[in-house]
Amino acid sequence: MKRIDSLQALHQRLNEFVAERDWEQFHYPKNVAMALAAEAGELLEHFLWLTPEQSDQLSKEQLAEVELEAADVLFFLIRFCDRLDIDLLQAAERKLAINEKKYPVAKSRGKATKYTKL
Amino acid sequence: MKRIDSLQALHQRLNEFVAERDWEQFHYPKNVAMALAAEAGELLEHFLWLTPEQSDQLSKEQLAEVELEAADVLFFLIRFCDRLDIDLLQAAERKLAINEKKYPVAKSRGKATKYTKL
Amino acid sequence: MKRIDSLQALHQRLNEFVAERDWEQFHYPKNVAMALAAEAGELLEHFLWLTPEQSDQLSKEQLAEVELEAADVLFFLIRFCDRLDIDLLQAAERKLAINEKKYPVAKSRGKATKYTKL
Amino acid sequence: MKRIDSLQALHQRLNEFVAERDWEQFHYPKNVAMALAAEAGELLEHFLWLTPEQSDQLSKEQLAEVELEAADVLFFLIRFCDRLDIDLLQAAERKLAINEKKYPVAKSRGKATKYTKL
Repeated sequence: MKRIDSLQALHQRLNEFVAERDWEQFHYPKNVAMALAAEAGELLEHFLWLTPEQSDQLSKEQLAEVELEAADVLFFLIRFCDRLDIDLLQAAERKLAINEKKYPVAKSRGKATKYTKL
Repeated sequence: MKRIDSLQALHQRLNEFVAERDWEQFHYPKNVAMALAAEAGELLEHFLWLTPEQSDQLSKEQLAEVELEAADVLFFLIRFCDRLDIDLLQAAERKLAINEKKYPVAKSRGKATKYTKL
Repeated sequence: MKRIDSLQALHQRLNEFVAERDWEQFHYPKNVAMALAAEAGELLEHFLWLTPEQSDQLSKEQLAEVELEAADVLFFLIRFCDRLDIDLLQAAERKLAINEKKYPVAKSRGKATKYTKL
Repeated sequence: MKRIDSLQALHQRLNEFVAERDWEQFHYPKNVAMALAAEAGELLEHFLWLTPEQSDQLSKEQLAEVELEAADVLFFLIRFCDRLDIDLLQAAERKLAINEKKYPVAKSRGKATKYTKL
């Protein structure tokens, strides 16, 4: 099977995966947003009791699990955007431009206190 | 500025964004996983009281907001993977192969009851 | 063992549970807030693909599981408040007074569109 | 107005609050579980970039905000249980008994590595 070497390729493969199973009928944006949040919650579970420093030093086993959770988050994010006809990279470009203005380098440098967003 | 036309291009731009602000020091995987979950929660807020059907019919204004939340989720997901040296597309390929086995077409077709994952 | 018949009784039992296991050392508010969000994510998982109407008609088995997830959320909420010396009922009273003003009956009646909070 | 001095009193006040606004129609368990998760996400936002130690040392202003988020979580948890006829304290008692067995003192003492739940 063709390698997944781009967001577009993954998007297409996910569409096929869902179409083959006739799951589009369940993938209302509301439902997919919930699934995304649930997966984000699963990702969290790996880090609850680690110090920030420990979270930088995962074992191979932990990393292998965490990778799969990250993939799940991406799957539902792509499905969400597919359903609502959102171009994810274009949205990212638009949001990044907003963040550039919101957090000017001169005022944001080295400070975590003033922002809660990337 | 160069268009963001791939996950790689976005990844690079985010790295620059963070480096310019010296924010890498805050981006422990634990913290970024929290930020990702918080953004997933913000995405949820747009859908709380909508019926599934209504969630398919967002207004232009709602869609414009929702797009930006989706971008935020992607930002932190990319940052998370960057920090832990996870190749997100490769992880997606690995997870998709697992899901293909976990949800064989013949048994999964049209059924939501047996699965909670994509 | 004494029945848990009030929030105070539960609070005390949880304190004992944690003290016996020497877990207070892990229960930084940051960590407990993460655990609370992770449990809220687990609660979500039960409802992803249900219609709103179906979510009102859980089977006994589903209900038994969901109850335990709800308890987990409460545990971490109580732990969180314990650690930060928050009186949860007093906070609830304060927030309810805010909500009464924010959502006056005359303007809020029967409308979901204007609010995203209780 | 009567003081809120118990979970039962809060439960009753919330029921009145919702009835006055005719909001019961929106409070499907699916929707309320989403609202709970969204509030848990808001709570998270206060802690993203704090060290665990800093999260123990919130300013009065931060604490005042965090208290209100905690109240929001409790509101939706109570609403959720009301809708599904779950007795929250009884569920807590049942879950605590499970946790007592799952995390025996002798084996759990001082160890965070083996558990991800309270």
